[in-house]
Amino acid sequence: MTGQILNGNSMDDYPLTLTSIVDRAERFHANRGVISRRPSGDVNRTTYGEVAGRARRLAHGLAALGVRDGDPVATMLWNQSEHLELYFAVPAMGAVLHTLNPRLFPEELSYIVNDAQDNVIIVDESLLPVFETIRDSREFAHVVVVSHTGDIPAGMLDYESLVANNEPIEWPVLGEGRAAAMCYTSGTTGRPKGVVYSHRALVLHSLVVALPDQFAVSARDTILPVVPMFHANAWGLPYAAALAGAQLVLPGPQLDSESVLDLLAAEHVTMTAGVPTVWMGVLSSLDAEPDRWDLSALNRLIVGGAAVPRSMLEGFDRHELSIVQAWGMTETAPLGSVCRVPEDLDQASNSDRYNYRIRQGVASPLVDIRARDDEGNLIAWDDTAMGELEVRGPWVAASYHHGQGAASFTADGWFSTGDVVRIDPRGCIRICDRSKDLVKSGGEWISSVDLENQLVAHPDVAQAAVIAVPDDRWGERPLAVVSLHPDVDPSVDKLRDHLAQDFAKWQLPDRFEFVSEIPSTATGKVKKSELRKRFTTEP
Amino acid sequence: MTGQILNGNSMDDYPLTLTSIVDRAERFHANRGVISRRPSGDVNRTTYGEVAGRARRLAHGLAALGVRDGDPVATMLWNQSEHLELYFAVPAMGAVLHTLNPRLFPEELSYIVNDAQDNVIIVDESLLPVFETIRDSREFAHVVVVSHTGDIPAGMLDYESLVANNEPIEWPVLGEGRAAAMCYTSGTTGRPKGVVYSHRALVLHSLVVALPDQFAVSARDTILPVVPMFHANAWGLPYAAALAGAQLVLPGPQLDSESVLDLLAAEHVTMTAGVPTVWMGVLSSLDAEPDRWDLSALNRLIVGGAAVPRSMLEGFDRHELSIVQAWGMTETAPLGSVCRVPEDLDQASNSDRYNYRIRQGVASPLVDIRARDDEGNLIAWDDTAMGELEVRGPWVAASYHHGQGAASFTADGWFSTGDVVRIDPRGCIRICDRSKDLVKSGGEWISSVDLENQLVAHPDVAQAAVIAVPDDRWGERPLAVVSLHPDVDPSVDKLRDHLAQDFAKWQLPDRFEFVSEIPSTATGKVKKSELRKRFTTEP
Repeated sequence: MTGQILNGNSMDDYPLTLTSIVDRAERFHANRGVISRRPSGDVNRTTYGEVAGRARRLAHGLAALGVRDGDPVATMLWNQSEHLELYFAVPAMGAVLHTLNPRLFPEELSYIVNDAQDNVIIVDESLLPVFETIRDSREFAHVVVVSHTGDIPAGMLDYESLVANNEPIEWPVLGEGRAAAMCYTSGTTGRPKGVVYSHRALVLHSLVVALPDQFAVSARDTILPVVPMFHANAWGLPYAAALAGAQLVLPGPQLDSESVLDLLAAEHVTMTAGVPTVWMGVLSSLDAEPDRWDLSALNRLIVGGAAVPRSMLEGFDRHELSIVQAWGMTETAPLGSVCRVPEDLDQASNSDRYNYRIRQGVASPLVDIRARDDEGNLIAWDDTAMGELEVRGPWVAASYHHGQGAASFTADGWFSTGDVVRIDPRGCIRICDRSKDLVKSGGEWISSVDLENQLVAHPDVAQAAVIAVPDDRWGERPLAVVSLHPDVDPSVDKLRDHLAQDFAKWQLPDRFEFVSEIPSTATGKVKKSELRKRFTTEP
Repeated sequence: MTGQILNGNSMDDYPLTLTSIVDRAERFHANRGVISRRPSGDVNRTTYGEVAGRARRLAHGLAALGVRDGDPVATMLWNQSEHLELYFAVPAMGAVLHTLNPRLFPEELSYIVNDAQDNVIIVDESLLPVFETIRDSREFAHVVVVSHTGDIPAGMLDYESLVANNEPIEWPVLGEGRAAAMCYTSGTTGRPKGVVYSHRALVLHSLVVALPDQFAVSARDTILPVVPMFHANAWGLPYAAALAGAQLVLPGPQLDSESVLDLLAAEHVTMTAGVPTVWMGVLSSLDAEPDRWDLSALNRLIVGGAAVPRSMLEGFDRHELSIVQAWGMTETAPLGSVCRVPEDLDQASNSDRYNYRIRQGVASPLVDIRARDDEGNLIAWDDTAMGELEVRGPWVAASYHHGQGAASFTADGWFSTGDVVRIDPRGCIRICDRSKDLVKSGGEWISSVDLENQLVAHPDVAQAAVIAVPDDRWGERPLAVVSLHPDVDPSVDKLRDHLAQDFAKWQLPDRFEFVSEIPSTATGKVKKSELRKRFTTEP
């Protein structure tokens, strides 16, 4: 007699849905704070208990407006408690939270609301001017305004009435594959593409985000996400915080360095997260007035969205503030990797530790990584070979909305990130370039990012971007576009000599172009497509 | 035009299997240590890289013995690196790890190996005498011995040869509902029942075990599980440690307090876990020789399996060692709840904090709890009402193996724990009794656990057990069975007066019986069934 046991008898039909996170916040973290700074600067204090209770009423109100299973509900909001209410209500009622980035250009936003077929949109009063720029591009059935003054424009609905006038609902039971939220990529080329996250994906993402070696989210944290809730789920922090019972401090629209520092100090924030540009400004303010803010509660800054320069790590270390670098994309929900210094480097030299900390880190649990060279072969993890990073995992997109951009997904089920990386023997990745930005000269790859990093290390240089330009002999050659600090005279020789300290002669740009400003996208990424258009058509 | 979006386009078909944990340990934590203390006392040092590599060979060897998809592979091993190899190899190859508790009685073990239909068993050399007691009860196809002396009894196979003689395999792709491991309950009544854990259940369990407010498992930890790997997955620590890259210190059979303390100190252990009896002994050793062991690395002791008395919390606090209480069962994989002091109690009185810390805690993420009174109504979370705890969640059993014990599962999909609890307004549970042990007197419940705790607090009392005995007038009345310290004269009046300080008159036991020793099961639980048999049939 054999006793084959093929299936477990665990409750595998217990669905992984955001409803369990919302329920948990309401039941177990009811008194933990959710603090919002309003556009006026006033600070509003509420709790997870109130947010979750209001979410039940809000869901009732949205259903009364006609929102049904699977309908997108668009938001044009800052980091504010109403946005958290929508993060709770919309997925838990079975609809799809569609966060809009108000910093996109009107034509992008118009394209996105039509591609997603948004019919209901929730807009913060302070963003009505942005909404007006896209208003005529789509006929919304309902425009709901979160008002701070009490004024509701004609033809629009009052968010507060939607909450106040409806009884709380019980959340329906949902399957874990159901759509919960969507976000559009803000690629530097091509049209934005929609990424639709399932409940399962976001629950697993929340658990992993909260792990000790990832963002380490605990009930004893107070988290200020500078990273916006309108893009890439604010790196998963709202749901991870609700799961753990960490307090949330939502900073609204004022993200200048002094406003951020004031809030970090006043609310005894323990963890914050955002892109390098924000922290560059914060660092300048701290350097200028090192004793002005009491940041003794703050024990980690998660930085991602672009590579963190060593100077920034050193700068914050001077103030005894620890930066942790993370990497991700809209398509990866976004957590892909986190750079935590391994224990055996504790005794290494400062320089070795910084050389590790400037990397993008080791793949997060449940995320698989590999990289392939341009012949499709897997690269060795020797920190020398370069290849395009591919990822796979339960919160990674398997496709874009409406099947667009199919070329980004491999036949065997991986997502091609477009990032070119080296991987060291520990499995720690370092992004060398975007694959579209690599320069391929005489069959060899030249990293535009490496050249750019070296250029901005020169005291004359404010910004730099390196692009590939066609070359009859070599295929492609690098061209450097540089903006200098005020009152500096352009000198190609000086910059070329500076680069020659670290690069081989064949890797040096053949041309240097000096510009007053380097064009960038709404999310702060350099618009290399525009530079290519401009400089490859010129003689 | 409407744009209903019912499904996410995340990679929801990416399966949650233990293979990703095994792969992660091999790829990213290859150099982290796995330290085993052998029965001889020698310490063996290996790494996750070696353990995972050997697991690939071991899987090949097991397949060569005929182990196929879904076949149980029984283990009779201590906490040792070979057990970890089997934790990796058996589920990842698609078979089912069946851990046997060598402390069970031979008739229980014989029943279990036949119920599970084990054909292959791996036995540590030091446990061969236990194996001999069940050898004749089942015809095993293969008996594999982990030998430390090099001697392999005739007719048995050498574990090392099984590893050494086979090439490493690549792990197959498995579905997440597949059976990964099984363990039998060690209930105080009835026959043991099998619980079969799916891959999905154990992956989710590992993620949640590792969360900061659960056991907080990180790559910077060194974990010594005193809790055995042969019962309830060693509370999930082996997989959580492999996931995070925490070092494991596996203590083998020597679990006396000095052996445990020696290892905690020598290996700079940061976290340890076990049942209260172990820590009672450890506390005595520490009190006797407070400066003998350097435990400065140790920052938490997870204690579960039985209620933690306040005196133990206080005792370890004296040594600046922090105990965290957890609750669970074999049927819950086992993590159900963890007691972490909430931030707002930091300023409370010592007494209030201890009154919180003696509780079993708040349900872990993804675990739902409720409790029902004996009329089936949900109890209020007012810390007064008592009811039987029911749980539900992705790693909770939905049934027992072979469909036994169906009465433990409610029609609407919850597992009835048999534990009677109060729940406070924060959702923090306190176990008052086993439902079978509650005394129901005149329609009111009397907690046997409360009476027992008060009895053992009396200086004369070594052990105490309270059982219900039938009563014509009241239905049931409490009876106290007491064993006294040596050279103490039994005095019913003294004990009754002592109880009367905290209990109403109608709650006091009508009878006190003095015994030299209170009978217990192999896992150290009081055998109330035996006491009931003995004292309810006497006049």
